[in-house]
Amino acid sequence: MTHDDILKAAGLTQDDLHGGTLAVHSPIDGAEVARIRETDAAEMPAVIARAQGAFRAWRQVPAPRRGELIRLLGEELRAAKAELGALVTLEAGKITSEGLGEVQEMIDICDFAVGLSRQLYGLTIASERPGHRMMETWHPMGPCAVITAFNFPVAVWSWNAALALVCGDPVIWKPSEKTPLTAMATMKIMERAMKRFGDAPDGLCQLVIGGPAVGEALVNSKDVPIVSATGSTRMGGIVGPKVAARWGRPILELGGNNAMIVAPSADLDMAVRAIVFSAVGTAGQRCTTLRRLIAHNSVRDDLVARLIKAYGSLPVGDPRKATTLVGPLIDHASRDRMQAALEKAKAEGGKVHGGRTVTSGVPQGGAYVEPAIAEMPAQTDTVRTETFAPILYVLGYETLEEAIALQNDVPQGLSSCIFTLNMREAETFLSAVGSDCGIANVNIGPSGAEIGGAFGGEKETGGGRESGSDAWKGYMRRQTNTVNYGATLPLAQGVKFDF
Amino acid sequence: MTHDDILKAAGLTQDDLHGGTLAVHSPIDGAEVARIRETDAAEMPAVIARAQGAFRAWRQVPAPRRGELIRLLGEELRAAKAELGALVTLEAGKITSEGLGEVQEMIDICDFAVGLSRQLYGLTIASERPGHRMMETWHPMGPCAVITAFNFPVAVWSWNAALALVCGDPVIWKPSEKTPLTAMATMKIMERAMKRFGDAPDGLCQLVIGGPAVGEALVNSKDVPIVSATGSTRMGGIVGPKVAARWGRPILELGGNNAMIVAPSADLDMAVRAIVFSAVGTAGQRCTTLRRLIAHNSVRDDLVARLIKAYGSLPVGDPRKATTLVGPLIDHASRDRMQAALEKAKAEGGKVHGGRTVTSGVPQGGAYVEPAIAEMPAQTDTVRTETFAPILYVLGYETLEEAIALQNDVPQGLSSCIFTLNMREAETFLSAVGSDCGIANVNIGPSGAEIGGAFGGEKETGGGRESGSDAWKGYMRRQTNTVNYGATLPLAQGVKFDF
Amino acid sequence: MTHDDILKAAGLTQDDLHGGTLAVHSPIDGAEVARIRETDAAEMPAVIARAQGAFRAWRQVPAPRRGELIRLLGEELRAAKAELGALVTLEAGKITSEGLGEVQEMIDICDFAVGLSRQLYGLTIASERPGHRMMETWHPMGPCAVITAFNFPVAVWSWNAALALVCGDPVIWKPSEKTPLTAMATMKIMERAMKRFGDAPDGLCQLVIGGPAVGEALVNSKDVPIVSATGSTRMGGIVGPKVAARWGRPILELGGNNAMIVAPSADLDMAVRAIVFSAVGTAGQRCTTLRRLIAHNSVRDDLVARLIKAYGSLPVGDPRKATTLVGPLIDHASRDRMQAALEKAKAEGGKVHGGRTVTSGVPQGGAYVEPAIAEMPAQTDTVRTETFAPILYVLGYETLEEAIALQNDVPQGLSSCIFTLNMREAETFLSAVGSDCGIANVNIGPSGAEIGGAFGGEKETGGGRESGSDAWKGYMRRQTNTVNYGATLPLAQGVKFDF
Amino acid sequence: MTHDDILKAAGLTQDDLHGGTLAVHSPIDGAEVARIRETDAAEMPAVIARAQGAFRAWRQVPAPRRGELIRLLGEELRAAKAELGALVTLEAGKITSEGLGEVQEMIDICDFAVGLSRQLYGLTIASERPGHRMMETWHPMGPCAVITAFNFPVAVWSWNAALALVCGDPVIWKPSEKTPLTAMATMKIMERAMKRFGDAPDGLCQLVIGGPAVGEALVNSKDVPIVSATGSTRMGGIVGPKVAARWGRPILELGGNNAMIVAPSADLDMAVRAIVFSAVGTAGQRCTTLRRLIAHNSVRDDLVARLIKAYGSLPVGDPRKATTLVGPLIDHASRDRMQAALEKAKAEGGKVHGGRTVTSGVPQGGAYVEPAIAEMPAQTDTVRTETFAPILYVLGYETLEEAIALQNDVPQGLSSCIFTLNMREAETFLSAVGSDCGIANVNIGPSGAEIGGAFGGEKETGGGRESGSDAWKGYMRRQTNTVNYGATLPLAQGVKFDF
Repeated sequence: MTHDDILKAAGLTQDDLHGGTLAVHSPIDGAEVARIRETDAAEMPAVIARAQGAFRAWRQVPAPRRGELIRLLGEELRAAKAELGALVTLEAGKITSEGLGEVQEMIDICDFAVGLSRQLYGLTIASERPGHRMMETWHPMGPCAVITAFNFPVAVWSWNAALALVCGDPVIWKPSEKTPLTAMATMKIMERAMKRFGDAPDGLCQLVIGGPAVGEALVNSKDVPIVSATGSTRMGGIVGPKVAARWGRPILELGGNNAMIVAPSADLDMAVRAIVFSAVGTAGQRCTTLRRLIAHNSVRDDLVARLIKAYGSLPVGDPRKATTLVGPLIDHASRDRMQAALEKAKAEGGKVHGGRTVTSGVPQGGAYVEPAIAEMPAQTDTVRTETFAPILYVLGYETLEEAIALQNDVPQGLSSCIFTLNMREAETFLSAVGSDCGIANVNIGPSGAEIGGAFGGEKETGGGRESGSDAWKGYMRRQTNTVNYGATLPLAQGVKFDF
Repeated sequence: MTHDDILKAAGLTQDDLHGGTLAVHSPIDGAEVARIRETDAAEMPAVIARAQGAFRAWRQVPAPRRGELIRLLGEELRAAKAELGALVTLEAGKITSEGLGEVQEMIDICDFAVGLSRQLYGLTIASERPGHRMMETWHPMGPCAVITAFNFPVAVWSWNAALALVCGDPVIWKPSEKTPLTAMATMKIMERAMKRFGDAPDGLCQLVIGGPAVGEALVNSKDVPIVSATGSTRMGGIVGPKVAARWGRPILELGGNNAMIVAPSADLDMAVRAIVFSAVGTAGQRCTTLRRLIAHNSVRDDLVARLIKAYGSLPVGDPRKATTLVGPLIDHASRDRMQAALEKAKAEGGKVHGGRTVTSGVPQGGAYVEPAIAEMPAQTDTVRTETFAPILYVLGYETLEEAIALQNDVPQGLSSCIFTLNMREAETFLSAVGSDCGIANVNIGPSGAEIGGAFGGEKETGGGRESGSDAWKGYMRRQTNTVNYGATLPLAQGVKFDF
Repeated sequence: MTHDDILKAAGLTQDDLHGGTLAVHSPIDGAEVARIRETDAAEMPAVIARAQGAFRAWRQVPAPRRGELIRLLGEELRAAKAELGALVTLEAGKITSEGLGEVQEMIDICDFAVGLSRQLYGLTIASERPGHRMMETWHPMGPCAVITAFNFPVAVWSWNAALALVCGDPVIWKPSEKTPLTAMATMKIMERAMKRFGDAPDGLCQLVIGGPAVGEALVNSKDVPIVSATGSTRMGGIVGPKVAARWGRPILELGGNNAMIVAPSADLDMAVRAIVFSAVGTAGQRCTTLRRLIAHNSVRDDLVARLIKAYGSLPVGDPRKATTLVGPLIDHASRDRMQAALEKAKAEGGKVHGGRTVTSGVPQGGAYVEPAIAEMPAQTDTVRTETFAPILYVLGYETLEEAIALQNDVPQGLSSCIFTLNMREAETFLSAVGSDCGIANVNIGPSGAEIGGAFGGEKETGGGRESGSDAWKGYMRRQTNTVNYGATLPLAQGVKFDF
Repeated sequence: MTHDDILKAAGLTQDDLHGGTLAVHSPIDGAEVARIRETDAAEMPAVIARAQGAFRAWRQVPAPRRGELIRLLGEELRAAKAELGALVTLEAGKITSEGLGEVQEMIDICDFAVGLSRQLYGLTIASERPGHRMMETWHPMGPCAVITAFNFPVAVWSWNAALALVCGDPVIWKPSEKTPLTAMATMKIMERAMKRFGDAPDGLCQLVIGGPAVGEALVNSKDVPIVSATGSTRMGGIVGPKVAARWGRPILELGGNNAMIVAPSADLDMAVRAIVFSAVGTAGQRCTTLRRLIAHNSVRDDLVARLIKAYGSLPVGDPRKATTLVGPLIDHASRDRMQAALEKAKAEGGKVHGGRTVTSGVPQGGAYVEPAIAEMPAQTDTVRTETFAPILYVLGYETLEEAIALQNDVPQGLSSCIFTLNMREAETFLSAVGSDCGIANVNIGPSGAEIGGAFGGEKETGGGRESGSDAWKGYMRRQTNTVNYGATLPLAQGVKFDF
C-alpha cells in the first residue's frame, strides 16, 4: 500500500492532513506525509475548561456505564486493527507484527478496563468505636493529561485513557510531534465508540497537537490534576517537579536501561531468542529494550558468538514487508546519536560488532542501521546512559551478587531479567536483594509486558505505574470515611473532652 | 509535677538537656526547659550513610521479624505512656488527655503494624502465556526521612516509623525545632525496644535535631528515597518538588482548612459537642482542626448561640490541670497570627466572638487565648487561609449543593464532615460530587481519625497517605514479575519475531 | 410472533424439538411446544469423563485466553439478545422486558468475567524466615455442575459458567425440566462462541436434560468437585450434604423470604414503586421476590391502601405484550400452591386483597393470577414459608429493633431492605445487629442485584455466593506456597530439631 | 520436673484434676495424671445458649476492641509459655522444643489476629446505577465450635479462637478426650486475659469436655453456625454433612498423606534434614507429617541410605529430655496401628527399615517406637492410607509428570513439597498441573506452616482454611449492600417496570 492508501484507510481525510504547519514524516523513507494543524497554546485554557466541564458530568456516570464506552472502544479497535496497525508502521516505522501488536495491546487494556469498571474496589473497615462504620471510597479525580512518545504512539494513550475514563477522568492527549497521525486516527476510532455510546459529555476525550508550549499548558494547569507523561528522563525531570509544585499528580514512565543476566545454567537457545527480540525489536526503541547483557564469564563468549551470528541474519529494511525484523530508526538524528554512542563506547575500550548504517536494500530516506553489540570492559558512562537505538552492551560477571550489583548500578530502574534454570538464582534475583527495577523477569526478556501487571519503574524511570494491578488508583482520589450512626460521640484513642 | 520532674520521668538526663545551642521552651509558661545539641549539617552524610548501611541489613530481615521490633516498641510505649504523655503536655502544651491520647495513637499504630508485618500482600496474577506465572511483590525501599511538626510531636513519627520499619526501611527523624525533647524521649523508648529485640542494625532509627540545613540534607539526598513531611503547605510546597526533582518519593501531610456542614436535620446537641472538640481541641492546632462551619440558614443562628455559650464555659489554662480543655498556643508568634487573622476577618465584615488573649488564671509566660468564633459574610481570603489557632469561621447556606461548593472552594483538601440525619444528604456528601477531601465524615468532626484508615488529603494538603489501609505501599517499591518456566518464548499481544 | 417463530428464531430445529420424551409447555397458554430428548442417566459417566478430559486441557489454557471465550460469548449473546429474550418469555413466562433483562444480565456477567480473567488474584506474603518466599495461588478446580431453576432459566447458568470457565473449570449444565429449551438455545450461542474461539476442548460445556437421576449423577460423582445448585431449600437440603459427604463443594442458592422494612421517614412514592416491582415482578417467582412487608404502624395503612390501588391497575396477561406487567405463573400447580397459601393465611387471621385466578383477557391455558396482599396479624407459619407466587404479607411494627427481629425471624436469609431517609436507621439495618441476610439494601427493593456484588444468602438460603466480588474463589482451589531459596532449613515458630 | 510439678505450674488445681470420670494419661509413661469432670450432654443447650447470649453482646463490640482481648491473650501466653509448653509435653508427649513451638504458634496467631482486627476488609463497589452505592461488609456470624485433636492440643484452638473472637464469634472448645488438661490450662490463661480486658461477656469462651455426645450437641445445633473440626477424615466425613444438613458452616482440617518429591537436582543434604524433621517430628503425628517420599530413581538409593543412617542416630525417649527428638506415640493403640500398617506394607512387597517398639532407655509405660522407612514397590492401599505414626513410605519415579501423578493419587490433599534446584520443576509443581494439595512447598518439608498463609487442604482433607490470608472470612458472614440515595428507582440490567 502507498502511504496515501494507509492514511486514507485509517480514516484520515485530506483536510486532516493538509493546511497546517507541523510536517509529519514517515521514518520509512523520510517522506513528508502530512502537514497538520497544531493546537495554539492560546487555545489550551478552553481545552482544559472543556475537560473540566466534561468531568463534572462524567464523574456522575456510574463506573460500569463508563466501562461500556471502553467496551465499545475495544470493539471499534478490533474492527480497525489492521488499518491502525499499518498507520503505526507508517508513522513510527514499526514492523508490521509490532504495529498490530500495539493495537492488540490497546484492545487488551480495553477488555481489562471494562472488567475494572465494576472492580474499582475500596475497603470497608471495622471502626474502633461502637455505632461507627468506616470505609474507603475511590472517586474520579479530574482531567488527565496524557503525554506520549513516538515509540508507542497509540498504546500508551490507551493504557492511560482506558483506565482514566473508567475511573471518571476526562483525557487530554498530547502525542509526540513525530506521531500525531496515529493519534488523530485513534481519536476517530474513539469518536465512533462515543457516538455508539450516546451521551458522553463534550470534551471527554481531546487531542492537542504541538510542542512544548502546549505541553506546558497541561503541566502547569491546576485544572489538570493528573499528568501522565511517557518519554525521556530529561523530560520527566522537568515535568515531575512542575506538576508537584502546583499540587498535581505526575505519573511518569521515563527512560530504562534494561539488563539481562545470563547465568551459567541458562537455556542459551532461549536466551539468544529473548536477547535478539528484546534488544533489536522496535529497532531498540522501546523503553523496555534490552540494553545491557550481563553474562556469566563461563557462557559469555559462546553467547556473544551466537548473538553475532543471529544479528548477521536479521533482515533490516522496510517495516511494511512481512519478512523484515528491523525497521528504521525514527529519524536521522537518532541514528547520529547511535553512532556517537558507539564511538564513545569504542573510546572506552569497547569492541563493537555491527552498528553500521544500512543504505542498500532499504527504502531511501530512512535511517536504517544494523543493530550493534558492544563488548565492554566495564560499566562505563556510555553504558549507564540510555541511547534510544539498538545497541546491546555486553558485560561479564563471576558471582550473582556481582551481576546484580551491575544490574542495579545505573540511574534508571525500569525493567530487568535473569536467564537461569537455577531456582536459587531466580528467586534471589526477584528478592529484596535482587533487581531494583519495577519489572523483574525470569527467563523472558525485559520487554513485552502483559497488561495485567502494573507497568513502570523506579529511580530515574520516574516511579509511575500504569496498566494492571491497582495502577488505576493513580487516576482516582481516595477518601476515608467514618460514619457515626449512633447518638454519642466517642473520640478515637480514648481521648476525653467533656464540657 | 515540675518541669524537671517531667523531663526526668521521661528519661531525659542532664546531659541530654544541657550543653547545646537549641533552646526549648514550654508553651505552658514560656520557660526555657533545655538547651540541647543540634545536629551539624556536616554530619548528615554520615547519618544517611548509616541509614543506608542499616538498610542493606534490615531489608533482609523477614518482615514478621521486623514486626517483632514494633511489637516491642508498643510494649515499651505502653509502659511509658504516662511519662511520655506528660512530656507532650510540657513541650507541646496539649492538655493531659490529649497528651495521653497521642501516645495511645502510637501504641495503636504499633499493634496495627505488627499485624501488617505478615500482611504486606502483593498479588499473584494469571499470565496470558502458557508456562508463565506473574506476581507482584513489594520490597523495602530504603531510608525514610520523617519530618514532623510540633503539634503531633511524637504520633506522626510513629505513624511513619512503625510502617517504615515493618516495611524494611530505616528511619531518620527530624522533629520540629520546637519539640525535640519528646523526640529524644521517644528515641530512648525505641532504644529499649531495640535492645530487647537483639540484632537491629546500627543506624536503623536515627534522630537529627536542627533547622533548615538539616532538613535540606534529607530532602536533597538521593540516598533517602522517601521523605515523609508533615507541616505547613508552604514547607511542603518546597519539599515536594525538591524530592521529586531528585527522583525521591515525597509523602506530604500539609495544611487543612477543614469544614463541617450542619444540615437542617442534624442532631444539634451532637453537632455542638463535635464542633467544640474539633475546633477548640489542641487549641485549634491540629491539621484536622475544624476551621469552617457551614450551617444551614435554618439552624445557623441557634447553633452559633449555642456555641458562643459553650465557648464561654471552656476552661482555658494550664494543660496539666485535669479540668483544662484549652491549653496554650505553641508560642506568642502564633497568638499574634491569630489576632491578625481576627482583625482581617473583621475588616472583611466578620463578627467575632471571643478570641481575646487570656492572662488571668493561666500560667504567666504562655500564649493563652479564648477560642474565637467569626461569623463571616462570605468565604473570604482569610477564611480560605489556614491560621493555626482556634478560630472557627461560620458561614450559612441554603442548598446542599451550595454547602458542598463552599466546602470544596478552598485550596486545602484534608478533612471534612457533615452533620445530618438525612441519608440522602449524608451519601451525597460522601459521593463523587461531595467533599473533595481525603477524609469525609458523617456525624463526627473532622479531627480524630482512627489509625485503620488511610490518613491524608488532596490538593494543597499534599496527597500523601499514612497510617492504615494500604498506606504502607508508600514505603515500599513494587515489582512486577513474570516467570517463564516453559521451554518456549511466546510474546505478549501475539507479536511474532522469528529469525 | 407464534411459538414456532420464537423457537425457530432462537435457533432450535425441528430435530431439537421433537422425537423425545420430555414435554415442554409454555406457561403462556399451557401449549406443548416441544417433546425433547432426555439424557439417559447411564450416559452420565461418559459426560463426566468428557468434562474431566476437558479439564485436563482447559486448566492449562492461560486464564486471559479463557476470558477470550467469554468475551466471544458476550458478543454472541448481544447478537442474540432479542431472540433469546423472547424464548425466555415463551418458556418461563416472563414479561418481555424481564426476558431481555435476563439476557442483559448474561452479557454483564460476561463483561465482568472477561476482566476477571486477568484478576484472579492470589497473594504474595512475607515469610517469617530468611531466604523464603510465600504466596497463595488459585488454580482451576475441576468440572462444575450447574443445576438451575425455571425462574432464571439462562442467567443463573451464565453467572456460574462465565466464572467457572474463566477459572478453568468445565461446566455441565442441568436446567430445570420446565425450561430446557432456553438452555438448548443458549448452548447453541455458546457453540458459536467456541467455534470462533478455535480450540476449546471437547466437553468444555455440556448440557444434560432430565430429572432426578441425571441430577444425582452429578451430585454424587467425585469427579465433579463443584456443584452449584439453584432452587428450593428442600432440594438444597438434599444436595448440600450429599456433595459434602463425598468431599465436593456445594454452592447453594436456595429459597428466600425477603422482607422490606418501611420506616416512618420513608419516601412512600419510591417505596410503593419498589414494592410493586419486587413483589409482583416475574409474577413473584424470583428467589429475591419481596414476600414480607414490615411497615411502621404510622405508615402501614396508608401504604397498604396505595398498594391495593397500584395492584388494581397492574396489567395481568400475555407476557409477550409490551404493556403486560404480570405474566403467568410457571404452571397450574404453582397457582394451586398460591391459593392454598392464601387460604392458610386467612385461617391464621390474615386479610387478603387480590390473589384471584384471572381467566379473562389472558391467554387460555396459562395460570394467571392477580397478585395478592395479605395483611397478617403476626408472622405466622405461612408467612415464614416461601410460596413461589406473588403474595405479599404485610406486618406492622413499632420500633426498628422489632422490625429487624421480624425480618430476621424466618429460616431463610437471602435478601432484605429498608426504606428510610433516616441515616441512623439505614446504618443500623446494615450493621452487625441489622439484617441477617446475604443482601441488605437501602431504598431499593430486595430483587434486582447488580452482578458486581456477591449474590447469595445465609441460613436456609444455603450460604453460596455467585457473581461479583470474590465469588470466583468458589470455583478455584487455593494453594499456599512456601519457597525456600536459601541453603538452610529454619523451622517456623523457632522450633529446633537438630540431629 | 515431676508430672505434678508441671500440672501445678500450669495452674491446674487439685480440684481441676480430681473428682471426675475422664482419666487422663501421660503418653510419656502411661501414668494417669488426672481424672477430670466431663460435661454432661444435658448441659450443652445451656452452654450454647450462653454462647448465643455472648454473641449478642460481642458482635456489637468494635473489632479493634475485640482485638485488644487477643492482644492480652498473647501477652498472657508469652508469660506462660514455658509452663504451657511443658504441659503439652506431658499430655501430648511432644518433645520440649515442639511443646514450646506450639505455644509460640499461639502467640504468633494472636499477633496476627490483633492486626487483623482492623483489617477485616470488605469492599466498596461502584454501582451501575446513578445515585447508588454498593459495598460488601463482613459481620460476626455466631458461636463457633472448635473441635480439636490430641496432636496440636492447644495451637489449633488458638488458630480458630483468635480469629473467631476478633471476628465477633464466641467460641466453644471441645478438645480431644486425650488432651483436656492443656485445654483447661489454656482456658485459665484466657481467663486472665479476659479479666484484664474487663467487659468480655459471659460465655464468650467456653470449654466442654467429653466424648461423642458432647461433640454431637455442637454439630447438630442450629445455634452454632460454625463448626471447626480438626481430626481424622472419618470424623470429618460424619461432621461435615451433618453440619451442612442443618445449614451450618463446617471448617474441616482432616487427614493428610503428605509427600515430598526429591528431584535429581535436589540439595540432598537439605532434603535429608527436611525429611527427617517432617517424617519423624512429633513422632509422625502431625496432620502435615511427611508420609510419602517420591524420589527420583537416580537419587533414591543414596537418599534411602542416608535416611536409614540418620534414623539410626535419632534419640528416642522421654520428650522432657533436651536431647530427645522422638517422643512417645499418643498411646499403645496407636503403636499397634503402626505395627499393623508395617505388616501390611511388607505383605504388599515393602521393605521396612526400623519401626520396632523401643523399650529400653525410655520411660516405661509409654508407647515408644523407632521411626520406620518402608521402601514400596508401588503406591499400594497401605501407602494411600494415613497411619498416624512415623512411617515413611518410599517410592521411585522417572519423570516429573509421573512423580506429580503419584503425589496426587491419594484421597487426601493437605500438604506436599518438592526438593529441586531446577526452577522449571519447582514452578511446574506449583502450577495448575502440579500438586493438588492446599499446601505446596519448594525445598522445605510439608510440615511447619507459617501462620501468615491459609492452612488447610483439598479432597478428603476437607477443604477448610484456617490461620492467615483471608481465612478469617470463614468466621464471618458476608453482606452485599446497595444503597440508593437518589430519588428515583432505576432497575439493574435496564429492566423497565412502570405502572
